Amino acid sequence: MSSQRQGSPERRLRADRARQAADVIRQQVVGRAYPGGVLPDERFLAAEFSVSRNSIREALDLLREEGLIDRVPGVGTVVVTEKYAHGLNQLMGLAETLHEHGDVTNDVRALGVIKAPSSVAARLGSPDVVYVERLRRLNGLPLSLDLTYLALDVGEPLLGLDLENRDIFSLIEQTSGRSLGAASVTLEAVNADAHSAAVLEVPRGSALMVVERLSHFACGRPVDLEFIRMRGDRLTMRAELRRS
Amino acid sequence: MSSQRQGSPERRLRADRARQAADVIRQQVVGRAYPGGVLPDERFLAAEFSVSRNSIREALDLLREEGLIDRVPGVGTVVVTEKYAHGLNQLMGLAETLHEHGDVTNDVRALGVIKAPSSVAARLGSPDVVYVERLRRLNGLPLSLDLTYLALDVGEPLLGLDLENRDIFSLIEQTSGRSLGAASVTLEAVNADAHSAAVLEVPRGSALMVVERLSHFACGRPVDLEFIRMRGDRLTMRAELRRS
Repeated sequence: MSSQRQGSPERRLRADRARQAADVIRQQVVGRAYPGGVLPDERFLAAEFSVSRNSIREALDLLREEGLIDRVPGVGTVVVTEKYAHGLNQLMGLAETLHEHGDVTNDVRALGVIKAPSSVAARLGSPDVVYVERLRRLNGLPLSLDLTYLALDVGEPLLGLDLENRDIFSLIEQTSGRSLGAASVTLEAVNADAHSAAVLEVPRGSALMVVERLSHFACGRPVDLEFIRMRGDRLTMRAELRRS
Repeated sequence: MSSQRQGSPERRLRADRARQAADVIRQQVVGRAYPGGVLPDERFLAAEFSVSRNSIREALDLLREEGLIDRVPGVGTVVVTEKYAHGLNQLMGLAETLHEHGDVTNDVRALGVIKAPSSVAARLGSPDVVYVERLRRLNGLPLSLDLTYLALDVGEPLLGLDLENRDIFSLIEQTSGRSLGAASVTLEAVNADAHSAAVLEVPRGSALMVVERLSHFACGRPVDLEFIRMRGDRLTMRAELRRS
């Protein structure tokens, strides 16, 4: 690396320098740090990162491949995808989280009572469950595909309600008169299979954030098990951690 | 869907049923719920999920494409990748987190003092920083590629130390005599570019979990900014959330 103080002679590949710059630029893009969504020109970025213009071009290529930025003739390099942050510290529905960015609507793809697979039945303490499958959109654009299992007594009151426009969390709290408490969440990065990709309107193989979330009533009873595929190019997850 | 109680006539595609089963099976695989890492046979799974054997075959195909399971003649369908959980509630280094699974070692790919890009300098309050780039392995297999920027006074004491075998968190706390406090974390799912894929030994385009983490001393001073690419097929992130 170009170590000004250590003077290490180690040679770094251009690809390594490009990745290093791309990560910092990605963070600026996602954090909306560039005024008007226009990136500084290559010469400025090369100076900023103490690398060659070729390395900067390669860094911008990486972010273009991710679908974050694009070149617009006469304007320069611009941000083309807004990514929205979903908080991991507080348990919130998507519409609650994103209300300042626009309207969340849901295509209800399936809805009904089913016999639960045994692992789902065990986790919800309910042999029959309400199954809800929704394609969720923000301002009409697909954000996530959610497969939801609800304990029968909690899910049945939702069957006639406005699942197209309301978060399941708020409907559960309204119909049960009880508050949700904690949830356990597992996150994975997974490549989209062909069919999920088609539903979410992304190329096959696109990186998705797959979230499995088991939500409980405040009393500790598990009531809502969800498997969520989020488009990686449209959602980020944010959390605050403590050392101890 | 096959709604036993509602009797909804809605037709569901086999791909939808396969995804639905695959999500529950994935959760069982990652949670190590199948004894000996051998999945039940197709007939059992078809009954379990109330779907056809063709749907189960398609579900298993999805998980095989993700690299989670494989068919072994004479044995059946077996789990082939262990995924490790990294906690999102407590701020821990990788070696601390995974100590029960084996030894974490680090290939130090770059190390030295550099002039920080302005956004990094601003976040760390340090115009010069120590830059450390590590390929992190568990029992020899690549898990993540970490690009780390440390405030100069915090990073310089680490330059001669055992970065191959120790977490940066524990080295910082040892050399500074101070405790780390909170960290802000952003998670994204991103497709691996060609060069990062080669370093992490995955196919180009593989889904990676990209983590950006800014860690602070307990007093609130930011000291450690990291950009981490985790192999999606080897790490999951776990968190506990509260409703309010």
